[in-house]
Amino acid sequence: MKVPKPTIRRLGLYYRCLSRYKEEGANFVSSQDIAERLNIKSSQVRKDLSYFGEFGKRGLGYDVKKLLSEIAHIIGVNKEWNVAIVGAGNLGSALANYPGLSKHRFKIVALFDNDKEKIGKKVAGITVYQMGELRKMVKTLQIEIGVIAVPESAAQHVAEKLEEAGIRGIVNFAPMKLRTRVPIEDVDITLSFETIAYNIIKAPAFSPIETPDEDK
Amino acid sequence: MKVPKPTIRRLGLYYRCLSRYKEEGANFVSSQDIAERLNIKSSQVRKDLSYFGEFGKRGLGYDVKKLLSEIAHIIGVNKEWNVAIVGAGNLGSALANYPGLSKHRFKIVALFDNDKEKIGKKVAGITVYQMGELRKMVKTLQIEIGVIAVPESAAQHVAEKLEEAGIRGIVNFAPMKLRTRVPIEDVDITLSFETIAYNIIKAPAFSPIETPDEDK
Repeated sequence: MKVPKPTIRRLGLYYRCLSRYKEEGANFVSSQDIAERLNIKSSQVRKDLSYFGEFGKRGLGYDVKKLLSEIAHIIGVNKEWNVAIVGAGNLGSALANYPGLSKHRFKIVALFDNDKEKIGKKVAGITVYQMGELRKMVKTLQIEIGVIAVPESAAQHVAEKLEEAGIRGIVNFAPMKLRTRVPIEDVDITLSFETIAYNIIKAPAFSPIETPDEDK
Repeated sequence: MKVPKPTIRRLGLYYRCLSRYKEEGANFVSSQDIAERLNIKSSQVRKDLSYFGEFGKRGLGYDVKKLLSEIAHIIGVNKEWNVAIVGAGNLGSALANYPGLSKHRFKIVALFDNDKEKIGKKVAGITVYQMGELRKMVKTLQIEIGVIAVPESAAQHVAEKLEEAGIRGIVNFAPMKLRTRVPIEDVDITLSFETIAYNIIKAPAFSPIETPDEDK
């Protein structure tokens, strides 16, 4: 059965939400509890989880620890993933410095670049290697996920190099569709700006001085 | 009529694809031409465009320039949007340096931060202002879109400050759902990694030494 992509993304949100409930000492939560924190419908939570089995207990809700471990297993964060970033520019450096990734078991273990000025230096404690070492380092450091943080013109070439090196999946920050044989996930920053522009145009005008109890 | 969110995002892709066709001198393209470049189905292209009217001509396809201008109008990139980034750390700096945004009519005109070390300095030629000046600068520089590039703990507060300052829409890079009255679009980098982890687990093993003409 094919699970819709938005469901997969929401599983990540549920995982984070449940982690917080666990930290707060909650043993059971309802789909309503989860939905409220995430600003979505509780029926959506139930539908998403139903793809993977029966998790809730009638009247009790979901066992927080158990559901956390189930979701971790489903989305693959029950293990640590080693990640390489190709491109040690601003974006690559921002990602290397981003604490959210290692917190969620995505450990950046190497950066790669062609710029001689950058090779051998460290970014956020992580060594920048030359591209020629990619295949070797992927093997040595057991890297499974590659990140493309290079300009558009180099992105397809880098994707191919990552595949040849034995990478199993790619997160692509270049604003274009790449052709790959391994799974690829695009983080298209410009598209998010375009979506917000569309929504601003469509949204009813919101004036910040209106009464605060007005509907959202 | 409510247009599905993925359709809005694809319109951005069509826009970019058509821009390239225009650069290449093409006057007419078919839905197949667009679909092929984007690695999607041509029926999807036709369905997405059908939400907004009848654009194609039977046998001729779409008039590239005309469709470009129609899509620009729909997604709001027929005008320039002034953008402010809150948070002049690694991520904020990466965004300020990202050429893709200004290329697509999202012009970053100001950065904001609370760090005295950063205030008054420039990042990619853009001045970093103190947060206290947000409201004033939003008015002066006619800023419509705010970007949240601060840690999770400060994100909700910054969202409220942006709304109070009169921002019309927000692009949020903090890995959490924020409550806002203006449209907000999350760029959740960790979720993209989780999605790729899921897809790697589900994907049939791909060995880089298999024959190159194998199906994707």
